[in-house]
Amino acid sequence: MSNIITITFPDASTREYESGINSLQIAESIGPRLAQDVVVSKVDGELRDLSYPIELNASIELFTGEAPEGHEVLLHSTAHLMAQAVKEIYPKAQVTIGPAIENRFYYDFDIDGTFSDKDLLRIEEKMHELANRGQIVTRKEMSRDDAITLFKKMGEHYKVEIIEDIDPGETLSAYQQSDFIDLCRGPHVPNTGEIKYFKLLNSSGAYWRGDEKNKMLQRIYGTVFSSKKSLKKYLNFLEEAKKRDHRKIGRELEIYIFDEEVGPGLPLWLPNGTIILDELEDLAKESERKAGYKRVRTPHLSKSSLYERSGHLEHYKDSMYPAMDIDGTEYYVKPMNCPHHHKIYAASPKSYRDLPVRLAEYGTCYRYEKSGQLFGLMRVRSMQMNDAHIYCTPEQFKEEFLDVCRMYLMYFEIFGIEKYMMRLSLHDPAELGKKYVDDSDLWIKTEKAVKEALDDGGFNYTEIPGEAAFYGPKIDVQVWSAIGKEFTLATNQVDFAVPGRFNLTYTNADGKDETPLCIHRAPLSTHERFVGFLIEHYAGDFPLWLAPRQVIILPVSEKVHDYGREIVNEMFEKGIRCEIDTRPEKIGAKIRQAELSKIPVMAIIGEKEVEARTISVRRRKIGDQGSIPLDDFISEILDEIKTRRHSYRKTE
Amino acid sequence: MSNIITITFPDASTREYESGINSLQIAESIGPRLAQDVVVSKVDGELRDLSYPIELNASIELFTGEAPEGHEVLLHSTAHLMAQAVKEIYPKAQVTIGPAIENRFYYDFDIDGTFSDKDLLRIEEKMHELANRGQIVTRKEMSRDDAITLFKKMGEHYKVEIIEDIDPGETLSAYQQSDFIDLCRGPHVPNTGEIKYFKLLNSSGAYWRGDEKNKMLQRIYGTVFSSKKSLKKYLNFLEEAKKRDHRKIGRELEIYIFDEEVGPGLPLWLPNGTIILDELEDLAKESERKAGYKRVRTPHLSKSSLYERSGHLEHYKDSMYPAMDIDGTEYYVKPMNCPHHHKIYAASPKSYRDLPVRLAEYGTCYRYEKSGQLFGLMRVRSMQMNDAHIYCTPEQFKEEFLDVCRMYLMYFEIFGIEKYMMRLSLHDPAELGKKYVDDSDLWIKTEKAVKEALDDGGFNYTEIPGEAAFYGPKIDVQVWSAIGKEFTLATNQVDFAVPGRFNLTYTNADGKDETPLCIHRAPLSTHERFVGFLIEHYAGDFPLWLAPRQVIILPVSEKVHDYGREIVNEMFEKGIRCEIDTRPEKIGAKIRQAELSKIPVMAIIGEKEVEARTISVRRRKIGDQGSIPLDDFISEILDEIKTRRHSYRKTE
Repeated sequence: MSNIITITFPDASTREYESGINSLQIAESIGPRLAQDVVVSKVDGELRDLSYPIELNASIELFTGEAPEGHEVLLHSTAHLMAQAVKEIYPKAQVTIGPAIENRFYYDFDIDGTFSDKDLLRIEEKMHELANRGQIVTRKEMSRDDAITLFKKMGEHYKVEIIEDIDPGETLSAYQQSDFIDLCRGPHVPNTGEIKYFKLLNSSGAYWRGDEKNKMLQRIYGTVFSSKKSLKKYLNFLEEAKKRDHRKIGRELEIYIFDEEVGPGLPLWLPNGTIILDELEDLAKESERKAGYKRVRTPHLSKSSLYERSGHLEHYKDSMYPAMDIDGTEYYVKPMNCPHHHKIYAASPKSYRDLPVRLAEYGTCYRYEKSGQLFGLMRVRSMQMNDAHIYCTPEQFKEEFLDVCRMYLMYFEIFGIEKYMMRLSLHDPAELGKKYVDDSDLWIKTEKAVKEALDDGGFNYTEIPGEAAFYGPKIDVQVWSAIGKEFTLATNQVDFAVPGRFNLTYTNADGKDETPLCIHRAPLSTHERFVGFLIEHYAGDFPLWLAPRQVIILPVSEKVHDYGREIVNEMFEKGIRCEIDTRPEKIGAKIRQAELSKIPVMAIIGEKEVEARTISVRRRKIGDQGSIPLDDFISEILDEIKTRRHSYRKTE
Repeated sequence: MSNIITITFPDASTREYESGINSLQIAESIGPRLAQDVVVSKVDGELRDLSYPIELNASIELFTGEAPEGHEVLLHSTAHLMAQAVKEIYPKAQVTIGPAIENRFYYDFDIDGTFSDKDLLRIEEKMHELANRGQIVTRKEMSRDDAITLFKKMGEHYKVEIIEDIDPGETLSAYQQSDFIDLCRGPHVPNTGEIKYFKLLNSSGAYWRGDEKNKMLQRIYGTVFSSKKSLKKYLNFLEEAKKRDHRKIGRELEIYIFDEEVGPGLPLWLPNGTIILDELEDLAKESERKAGYKRVRTPHLSKSSLYERSGHLEHYKDSMYPAMDIDGTEYYVKPMNCPHHHKIYAASPKSYRDLPVRLAEYGTCYRYEKSGQLFGLMRVRSMQMNDAHIYCTPEQFKEEFLDVCRMYLMYFEIFGIEKYMMRLSLHDPAELGKKYVDDSDLWIKTEKAVKEALDDGGFNYTEIPGEAAFYGPKIDVQVWSAIGKEFTLATNQVDFAVPGRFNLTYTNADGKDETPLCIHRAPLSTHERFVGFLIEHYAGDFPLWLAPRQVIILPVSEKVHDYGREIVNEMFEKGIRCEIDTRPEKIGAKIRQAELSKIPVMAIIGEKEVEARTISVRRRKIGDQGSIPLDDFISEILDEIKTRRHSYRKTE
């Protein structure tokens, strides 16, 4: 009886097995289909290889490749498979690292030259061959020193460098299939035969350890799924995402540029892009005015003394631009607006009757990002922030915090964002006094208040320990675009530490000084990231109010140009962005050009329209709307703009 | 006959005198009144002491102290008189420099301690005593080395330092009255008895040579006029200007602050100030939209390469902030927006049909000014510029340039600016290739085009040689505030040099590439300087559309608070900045407080008003307006705001 153990399943059912059984065997005992599909298991809450022997009573959860846990294992194992294939084809290639990222994996190799598309096909073919061989994948544990000896012997110098950074006492694990062995925490699939539906996507250069001072390696991205259908769906998604790439559309619609002589990560907004920014800013100013915010403006520079007081130089210096020396004093470009706002709060004495004080600014901040990390509008060095700071009493906190969250939802509604998730980042008690302000009680109290507010408001959120800001917990909002691509957009942070450092106070009802809480919030994110998101979300087909070019008049012949110009002038007077295509082209060609430029409203005019003072309206993504009297048309357009309506289904 | 000379007067009349006669004697020959009033003369176009002997035929012009030329001599001579008085009272004081500035003079002394108001009175008394002594003022010429010996002997080490900087071969002049002698180019009044109507104004610290690394000296400001009446008028003006000082009103109305930890010259705009900025920006955006400008946005930083190309690093580096080193590349905060705009122009190919291209931006620029030069909002380090650049063909230039000038006039009308002057700064041929782009023909051609445009438009302007920008001629616009204080506000520059450096082109009608001209313009100046001007111009009594606090409801008793709040809400909905004074105070006290806060519209409500749904309106600077139905009142307010009208005479 002593070698019989009880295995408990997620539905609380149990089965008995002999001690030493593994998860694959358990799956086989349940059914052949499950045994075929399962890729990894969780034993007593720890992810384990299917071959991991279970000695004692345990709870177990089995995952197929459809589950996130299983998918990640598939991605990891396929990365190894790819590395094995590369080593077979390019024996001199050195392997480095190959992590799984969302729905994809990559692996960086040190090789001479680069990988062509043809090379990728050849590697993919080799991967299929290696997978079909049904190689058994085995886990090996070894000491750090043994690992160094092993990889040195194999000539894998990058691996040696990685291992040398690891604590000498630690035991490392590696996974081997045939004679290919790679350092990995695992778990992995038990047999390469499990890896079937994969595709190499693209390759690019990547610096070793992301540092441009290091050697440029060659990175290959790939993906894998547990079914042909899932793979196909994902490849279609990538295809659609590629079409919607904000860098591509941003260039085509003349929204922004980068310039070599200005510098990486510093976008220049062209007139079309600036229209979008101005519209967003108007929306933000309008909603913030209604919500009782007051606008302020602060310089982009400050003496170092401000950031010594705020703690930025202590906690955030790596993300700041370097100092400028002015008359012997160090000045910095601002990485955040908060310290300046704290100074404005402090400019006059406050009583509890003055609170909450809500200070809003479109302040451009500058943060240093390694040039290798920069990515279109998503990762930049100059950030126009839809920023505000709310100073309130502890009693006001919950309502203010909820109001901010509700403002997020209002914006999501306007922009047609249907899926979102709030990630509540909490502190890590082990990092108090290091990464986090050293006041355990305040952390616990404030995190509790935030959670209560979110619970009360009925918001969905997940808790992420160890990712708070140094001055308090924060909420990052993930949103999903129309095609389901994920973006991290907005942020909402509670600050219970810094107001005290700035000696911010208010007089309470008893005439005593108290320190206010501060909420940092930016529901429209940075202009840069938000516009990048919107471009991809709308695929460049902006709703009318945001469209840089709203209406184009398409005259059928030169005879009606005067009528067309009259319409343009009338619309211009009313603030509608309207133009006329007077090129001597056929109407079909004009329509095609307007479609290419993604202009939402085409107004076709011929002699019939002149006579009746009408317009033949054709809406992009909707189609012909027929003939409409000019005045009605203008009112409709104005109303659609004013109400910021969507005129077509955004997912189309 | 050989010692008789002919003197020609400005009215072309002539008189004959003996050679060697001086201007004072000539004045005496004309009349005793003129002899008494004259303070300086111009002989053959050169300003001379009245005692200067005229040996040959000459033209002569005599100036009394009322003329600018005479006033400046009075100011100079009074500065010397003050220095003499200081030396008599404080024998150990060392003199430094004492120039005349507009309507005032100052003199910097090295003394122990500072000058109190009592000290100033004592010095003034001593000056009257010295003036009344009727000391004769004589000019002495000497070699540089003799001057060094003289001032060394006198223990005037600052003077010695000044003289040591002068070319050894030069002859210097000094003016002496009794045993007081001071280096000066002159001319001066012949006798201290001419100096009668003066007043010492204030004293302050000032660094030797304006450099904060040097010793702090003590500066005394004073003024002098040729009549008691003129002195009194000027002292009244100073009194009024002091009341209107934008630093004082800026603090009282909570418009902006400076903060020690943020740094000098970097204003933080409080909510009230930001309202004014936002209103100005809306006005600018509205007029620029109507005038066919397109808005752009550019980062505040750039790699050094941009400023190498633009020439800023060559010609303008002293006014730029120091570089930041990022990954081995130097970055600068932008001192101007033009290079960024040039990059935006270049982002897509242009044909002559696309021109003019007018790119506008509220770009904040940063310029280094010595901390001793900083002054309130007038001289700052961060500048929010109402900036734009117009790219046009030579054929379009005149009309574009005139349109810009007309836009100035439109703004002057809105802000009630009645007196202005355009200063056309031209290049100095001697500085070509040094201070100015080395292309003589282009300078001449462009300066001619600008003058033609100004002549055609009927604008008054004065030409100032040697003050052009390095890339072309510029127009600075001086304006005078309601009380006649002068400000340099706007700027309008022609750039024929830099577009070529950026390879900016357009295709002309023949299909060939040409370089556009570029007009730099900022009719609303920087926000900082313009708001500083407006505060002083309006003495803080902003017209309704600009007033940070527009309407205050003053309830007579608590019973009518609900009606008051209803009005506040209704106005808030309509975008009117309205608040309510619910303090338990008498109505008189509430009115006094609203007046102190310079709130333009007071709406007094009692039970009578509730019943009739009216408002008792009291307008600041206008008075009681009687009872008005609520709806009419709101329409009137909205209309006044929308039309940006002045509701009262601004000079009141």
